[in-house]
Amino acid sequence: MRIALFGCGRIGRVHADAIASHPRAELAWVCDPMQDIARELAAQHATSATADTAAVLADPTIDAVVIASSTPTHVDLLARAVRSGKAVLCEKPIDLDIARVDACWAEIGAAEPLVMVGFNRRFDSSIREVRDRIRAGEIGRLEQLAITSRDPAPPPAEYIAKSGGLFRDMTIHDLDLARFMLGEVVEVQAMGANLVEDYVEKCGDIDTAVVIMRSAGGALCQIANSRHCAFGYDQRLEAFGSTGMLAVHNQLPTSVRYAGPGRTEAAGPYSGFFLERYGPTYRAELDHFITAVEKGGPLEPGFADGRAALVLANAADKSMRTGSAVPIAPAPPL
Amino acid sequence: MRIALFGCGRIGRVHADAIASHPRAELAWVCDPMQDIARELAAQHATSATADTAAVLADPTIDAVVIASSTPTHVDLLARAVRSGKAVLCEKPIDLDIARVDACWAEIGAAEPLVMVGFNRRFDSSIREVRDRIRAGEIGRLEQLAITSRDPAPPPAEYIAKSGGLFRDMTIHDLDLARFMLGEVVEVQAMGANLVEDYVEKCGDIDTAVVIMRSAGGALCQIANSRHCAFGYDQRLEAFGSTGMLAVHNQLPTSVRYAGPGRTEAAGPYSGFFLERYGPTYRAELDHFITAVEKGGPLEPGFADGRAALVLANAADKSMRTGSAVPIAPAPPL
Amino acid sequence: MRIALFGCGRIGRVHADAIASHPRAELAWVCDPMQDIARELAAQHATSATADTAAVLADPTIDAVVIASSTPTHVDLLARAVRSGKAVLCEKPIDLDIARVDACWAEIGAAEPLVMVGFNRRFDSSIREVRDRIRAGEIGRLEQLAITSRDPAPPPAEYIAKSGGLFRDMTIHDLDLARFMLGEVVEVQAMGANLVEDYVEKCGDIDTAVVIMRSAGGALCQIANSRHCAFGYDQRLEAFGSTGMLAVHNQLPTSVRYAGPGRTEAAGPYSGFFLERYGPTYRAELDHFITAVEKGGPLEPGFADGRAALVLANAADKSMRTGSAVPIAPAPPL
Amino acid sequence: MRIALFGCGRIGRVHADAIASHPRAELAWVCDPMQDIARELAAQHATSATADTAAVLADPTIDAVVIASSTPTHVDLLARAVRSGKAVLCEKPIDLDIARVDACWAEIGAAEPLVMVGFNRRFDSSIREVRDRIRAGEIGRLEQLAITSRDPAPPPAEYIAKSGGLFRDMTIHDLDLARFMLGEVVEVQAMGANLVEDYVEKCGDIDTAVVIMRSAGGALCQIANSRHCAFGYDQRLEAFGSTGMLAVHNQLPTSVRYAGPGRTEAAGPYSGFFLERYGPTYRAELDHFITAVEKGGPLEPGFADGRAALVLANAADKSMRTGSAVPIAPAPPL
Repeated sequence: MRIALFGCGRIGRVHADAIASHPRAELAWVCDPMQDIARELAAQHATSATADTAAVLADPTIDAVVIASSTPTHVDLLARAVRSGKAVLCEKPIDLDIARVDACWAEIGAAEPLVMVGFNRRFDSSIREVRDRIRAGEIGRLEQLAITSRDPAPPPAEYIAKSGGLFRDMTIHDLDLARFMLGEVVEVQAMGANLVEDYVEKCGDIDTAVVIMRSAGGALCQIANSRHCAFGYDQRLEAFGSTGMLAVHNQLPTSVRYAGPGRTEAAGPYSGFFLERYGPTYRAELDHFITAVEKGGPLEPGFADGRAALVLANAADKSMRTGSAVPIAPAPPL
Repeated sequence: MRIALFGCGRIGRVHADAIASHPRAELAWVCDPMQDIARELAAQHATSATADTAAVLADPTIDAVVIASSTPTHVDLLARAVRSGKAVLCEKPIDLDIARVDACWAEIGAAEPLVMVGFNRRFDSSIREVRDRIRAGEIGRLEQLAITSRDPAPPPAEYIAKSGGLFRDMTIHDLDLARFMLGEVVEVQAMGANLVEDYVEKCGDIDTAVVIMRSAGGALCQIANSRHCAFGYDQRLEAFGSTGMLAVHNQLPTSVRYAGPGRTEAAGPYSGFFLERYGPTYRAELDHFITAVEKGGPLEPGFADGRAALVLANAADKSMRTGSAVPIAPAPPL
Repeated sequence: MRIALFGCGRIGRVHADAIASHPRAELAWVCDPMQDIARELAAQHATSATADTAAVLADPTIDAVVIASSTPTHVDLLARAVRSGKAVLCEKPIDLDIARVDACWAEIGAAEPLVMVGFNRRFDSSIREVRDRIRAGEIGRLEQLAITSRDPAPPPAEYIAKSGGLFRDMTIHDLDLARFMLGEVVEVQAMGANLVEDYVEKCGDIDTAVVIMRSAGGALCQIANSRHCAFGYDQRLEAFGSTGMLAVHNQLPTSVRYAGPGRTEAAGPYSGFFLERYGPTYRAELDHFITAVEKGGPLEPGFADGRAALVLANAADKSMRTGSAVPIAPAPPL
Repeated sequence: MRIALFGCGRIGRVHADAIASHPRAELAWVCDPMQDIARELAAQHATSATADTAAVLADPTIDAVVIASSTPTHVDLLARAVRSGKAVLCEKPIDLDIARVDACWAEIGAAEPLVMVGFNRRFDSSIREVRDRIRAGEIGRLEQLAITSRDPAPPPAEYIAKSGGLFRDMTIHDLDLARFMLGEVVEVQAMGANLVEDYVEKCGDIDTAVVIMRSAGGALCQIANSRHCAFGYDQRLEAFGSTGMLAVHNQLPTSVRYAGPGRTEAAGPYSGFFLERYGPTYRAELDHFITAVEKGGPLEPGFADGRAALVLANAADKSMRTGSAVPIAPAPPL
């Protein structure tokens, strides 16, 4: 499968590695308006660089595209790629504006396009193991789900300003994870706070949040977020069911433990940030994409999942602002 | 210190043991309308049994009383004991009805009574260690607090029917714990669900809940509750601060771990129920009570703490029913 | 059961507490040549103090004695108590000299005396759980046993000088534990070292040791000892069997864990020293003693177990000095 | 660096992957008498296959060789490669016969060859972290070292028959690890047993062993081995020092934990076997080799380390057979 990559930034380079090392994929083009970084990445993988999006999409030998460019460019690239007959793996979020998301789908939906959204955590081996064991009935009916997600340190002010806010930028991963475990959500409540950095508040954003949700099946879900964490990247999940509990604990780079005066059983810091903790998910995600495209679909998580997570983020934001629970209407059929 | 005990049920017997084994206390009377159980308990501790409340309160040699009778009897006993000049350790809750709580205080408050409320978890060595280390600055500013509290199995329908509901009966311990760690709470949101036993719903109660709260200092708090838990008594706490985190994990009766085909590092079930997990707190609580009474006060947690936890339970209940955040007004000075 | 206690030092006081709080026992006498400490302990438990051993043994109302006096006094007291028809719980070791041990038995053995030796670790709930689960077949055939035992800090030189050496004083507990788990031992090798304090070497003793042993059933056993440990009292055991492993981990006084810059999952120091870690074993041991005496025996661990552990300690010492494996002859029938 | 690989079996393929993916290395030849498997491996890495050892060694463009062929071929290939001016990374063991090892060195030593021996565990990130932290003084003086090493299941009889015995085949890794942590060893004692499979005993070998050793610096070391382990690959290490302890625990493929009726905190099986547990070490080892060769040396672990581990394995074997401690003479200068 010949794949073109749009976007050669940090996450683009991760996708380039995944494509280049996949046994059935070829990194055919890397495309970025900043030609320097495109050329550098192309050289690294012995492929071609360009800034010409149209030329890439017009190349009939390209089977699929990976969209890892900046968020505002996603819907346009996605729609054009679909019109060009390419399968698409698009980084999350589809867009920060639900209206633009829906307009995109209105344009492409009839074509029943092969579109996958990059919620990479669904491909983490620990998270997937928990879901598989839940589905196998190991903990009975899922009653409560608790997700803890804290970044090591807040991004700079300029990132915050364009991020769409904590719920759409950061919590969205946890909201997708909740849907991955629980299915559809019907009610959202949220509280936010500014405890970390003044510039976050100046940007009109929050840096700390808690969210509670009710699923269509009746289960209750909790999410805790912070833009900083003194002990590293805090990524945990607890699925409490009628007959047991499955938890994903934080992960350590080595299995070394220390005991000495004043402390025992002490481990080192948790695995760095998302590239360390979730690095292998990008390859697993790409493999799922390629395999599913080869079969003609379905792709999961798909466009509808990308939309649904944004709807929940918007609801959390609204609940925080109004102090009221926000009901979630059933999604329109996509 | 000569102490009289009101109520000889399960929790009364725990208090009787604590009093009898305290080096500076004497269990002078055990008092219960059911004379059989009073006499049995008295025999066990070589003391006197009676059903005559008035006689006990009129005994001038009695310095203090412990109220462990049924909840509806608390405010009357408490007020009469205060009027008789006794120091009081009253089991939680003071009452299920905030109006009766306030009426009780209206009656006794002017006397600046020595009243302590039995939120025994404040005296758990792990919980107290976390609070002490937070106060010592070990994790900086407290930003998020997560409390998980699940009972091994739901109480029978007749208990549920009189319990005042999950928030007032069970969550109230977690609400007090939140105040113990965070100080005053200013906003409460809650969701409840019926996932465990049909008879709970028939009683008009819930068996599963999540609560989120904001403290006056800005921190956010999460509580998760369930009336059942397949793996035992689930009692955990995480205090996330600006420079670190302190957690109270579940406790195991032995330190044995198993590894074999299919699983490793496996421990046995967690410590039974509250008498196993929190057994030592009753002695520590009594020791605090006796020591503080000897000094003439202050007693902590006091009447105001008992009232405040009930206010939060009521707010959680209201939020669950209305779907809106409930602001908590500053408590009246007690 | 009326019990007299010989020896009112640290371990004697532990036994006094256990006897005084046992529902079917009465602490009838405390006996020590140092009358001050005997009187102090007697006052604490409202009983009688004496320095007159003979008077205590002549008291026909005494059913049993607990010998917690200094090691050199054990065999004489033990023999006299048996001759006086008392059941005996004797602290370990019976004596440091196997010849004196055997002479004692020659004197008392014919009477089929009720004698128990205070290897209290056999009554630790974790250790006992492991043995019970092994016996229940949970890990199949026991193939390897690893015991780690390190004291927080070395005793003073005067203690070392009279201790009989590390193997007879400290390792003896681990040797008994090995027999408790494995049954009889047939071969011993050992290495010792002086790494902790110069005064240990000056006393002709070692402060660090490793021992390997083979059981009659074919299993191999490892013991690691040190007279000091920077992180507290290190008391662990691993039983590796054909179908799984059971381990006793170190124990912590609270379940608090810390995460912060540079470390995560950090616990505090392990439970102090033997009185903290093994405190409850003294009550369990006494309860076993009383119950078994009430039934007329058998008592376990008995005199033969006390002798066998000393034989292994002697063998370890010999192996260390000669560099050769020491075979263990079958014990004479006691 | 152009590298030729000798041996295309399981471990050869691991080295081929490591060479092919190293940024500064090129897999120039794969060489094996079984031409089919050589051709298959060559095709996978787009390189050349041959059965002609001499041709490869005569190729002047080859800078280095990796010897991953069967053990009896090592010394001949090693000597010829050195004479051809190649740097050598040779899988452990150099040979099973110390006389052949010494003869090999007699032949090549004068050339001061660049030879590294494949004790890959030295490159495990957890093991290396422990050594680095010991060297940094974090636990003071190293006093005791405990290594546990158990394979999931015994190899077949035909492997056992040619293996050189448990000490030379399996324990040798632990013996090298001991030297890596402790430096030189001066005394060895060992016990072996047959507990796992009858065919091991029929081959004249053991399947279970314990070894104790004394280092030149005075520290004591313990090793426990078994050819089987019901809970997976058991690979642990504890370094006990004067001021603390550092341990390498077993590793789990995911961070999922389960709690349910009868058990809590349960993890899944430990990481498969050596290719899973130590997979990354092969790349780290190769990177060390390439970097060190580029600098002209030194290579560590070198020929002398390979020899020293074999000397210890021989000593363990002798101690097991004689029941006596075996002193280790200082190694001749290599």
